[in-house]
Amino acid sequence: MQTKDLVLGIDIGGTNTAFGFVDRQGVVVLSGALPTQPRDSADAFIARLYDHIEASKRGLVFPYRLCGIGIGAPNAHHSRGTVENPPNLNWGQKVDFAALIRHRCPPPVSITNDANAAALGEMLFGGARGMQHFMVLTIGTGLGSGIVVDGRLVYGASGFAGELGHTVVDPDGRPCSCGKRGCLETYVSAPGLVKTALELLESQHKASGLRDMSHKEITSQKIFELAGGGDVLALAAFDKTARILGMKLADAVAHTSPEVIFLTGGVSRAGDLLLKPAQTYMNTFLFGVYRGTVKLLPSALPPGESAILGAAALIWSELTL
Amino acid sequence: MQTKDLVLGIDIGGTNTAFGFVDRQGVVVLSGALPTQPRDSADAFIARLYDHIEASKRGLVFPYRLCGIGIGAPNAHHSRGTVENPPNLNWGQKVDFAALIRHRCPPPVSITNDANAAALGEMLFGGARGMQHFMVLTIGTGLGSGIVVDGRLVYGASGFAGELGHTVVDPDGRPCSCGKRGCLETYVSAPGLVKTALELLESQHKASGLRDMSHKEITSQKIFELAGGGDVLALAAFDKTARILGMKLADAVAHTSPEVIFLTGGVSRAGDLLLKPAQTYMNTFLFGVYRGTVKLLPSALPPGESAILGAAALIWSELTL
Repeated sequence: MQTKDLVLGIDIGGTNTAFGFVDRQGVVVLSGALPTQPRDSADAFIARLYDHIEASKRGLVFPYRLCGIGIGAPNAHHSRGTVENPPNLNWGQKVDFAALIRHRCPPPVSITNDANAAALGEMLFGGARGMQHFMVLTIGTGLGSGIVVDGRLVYGASGFAGELGHTVVDPDGRPCSCGKRGCLETYVSAPGLVKTALELLESQHKASGLRDMSHKEITSQKIFELAGGGDVLALAAFDKTARILGMKLADAVAHTSPEVIFLTGGVSRAGDLLLKPAQTYMNTFLFGVYRGTVKLLPSALPPGESAILGAAALIWSELTL
Repeated sequence: MQTKDLVLGIDIGGTNTAFGFVDRQGVVVLSGALPTQPRDSADAFIARLYDHIEASKRGLVFPYRLCGIGIGAPNAHHSRGTVENPPNLNWGQKVDFAALIRHRCPPPVSITNDANAAALGEMLFGGARGMQHFMVLTIGTGLGSGIVVDGRLVYGASGFAGELGHTVVDPDGRPCSCGKRGCLETYVSAPGLVKTALELLESQHKASGLRDMSHKEITSQKIFELAGGGDVLALAAFDKTARILGMKLADAVAHTSPEVIFLTGGVSRAGDLLLKPAQTYMNTFLFGVYRGTVKLLPSALPPGESAILGAAALIWSELTL
């Protein structure tokens, strides 16, 4: 039996961490997951992660070679290999995460933030194959973005380019966990959608299934289900979210003029409920020369695997070049 | 006497067109200008331009070789060589401008929009020498921008990347000549500054030299002079303009994370009156990871020559590579 080349892709989220062994064609041959446990130190987390990975490896019942480890993590800095001030994690100001992993594993280790990883995944294994200019937005608990220009991920002078979640929608708007006000991710994210629905419940008198729920019960998933059934208020919450998203996407197009903007992450699974009105609003906000040059599409990667594929793409893209 | 290599740089504006012969070191050895006459067809304009250039050439009293012609023009498309729907010019929907010039002149002809030319000029001859990530904003009658990522001008999928003048400040805001509302250039430009001053005259009761002028007499230059003398209302107009500029620059940083943002064009000559408050506001609107990574600076090119140098840089950058 031929030895199979594999890359370990690890996606570290605020709540869960997923990992998987990915071959050169982008097939996840084995995967696993563990709770991130945000109170853990980085060391403690890595020890647990390592145990999980070692246990999983036993499932690889064919000869293989591990070619590298790619990691997607919040606030990761690609060239420094660090994770810096990650929101919701007790890892301190700066952890040399790549070094900590390398300490235990010999092969090449590379790290970047989750949205950049998603963009690389889309480029290598998804809908952006062969594309020179595109962008990926991950919309879930927060809003992240990875921007590709001339076939390369944009890191910029700081190494942190592409934090569209913290562009300004309204300078006097909703407080953001980053300390600023009115950031895009306070409107376009799972908590943002919930907040918009709650505001509409207060300000409008339309009947809605949301009125039968306690505030605690109202989640983005519930709003999605109600909107799918035609609930007027839930639909209005999606429409308002889509308008803000469309407006800021038009701004993004004015910067780097992508051919496609891909949406991924939990909230993007609302599909056409978000995508269609966002595309319409984006077109109305687009400067004339851009109209007809840019599409808004769902990620072409399987939702459950896109984060792992993105992390693995970080290594595969370097090995394939 | 040694033959000198020269590039002809042409900057076409809505009112005036300037041109100059530029050597490899970025010295303008001879320059000229003519009114653009917006009602002229592109053909008629080029015939006049050609006559002016031929007449100027007589001033080149040393042996030289013309290595190419670089052109900065509104709504120019670099790879197509076209000027498309230029605002304030009677050139129709699409003119193959590079071909029309090539028809009369043998050497290589290259065209791009004026803000992209400004960015190339800054990179070759100005403050961005050796820089990988920066941005140039030209603030005058309108607001244009040229974005450089990884040492290369960003053109994007449409070829028109970097139209920051048409990002949205307020979706219900001032009507823009582009047909949208609340575009950045309706606030941050010479006419935008005047409009802001007029609004402040209406809404505030502070004493101001502006109250002694007719609306027609109030120009950005007058507001600049009054602000320099401490006029509270004129200063407030600059402050409001700087706040909007700072907010949208922070958004721009979140996209491509430049090391420096250079300001050029008529309004930017207000210098510290605009630059200092814009820098302060930008910092308050910046997402944490970007703070301290980006500077706002005036262009290092001589104001009267920057547009010509930019246009010439279009050819020199291709010849130097």
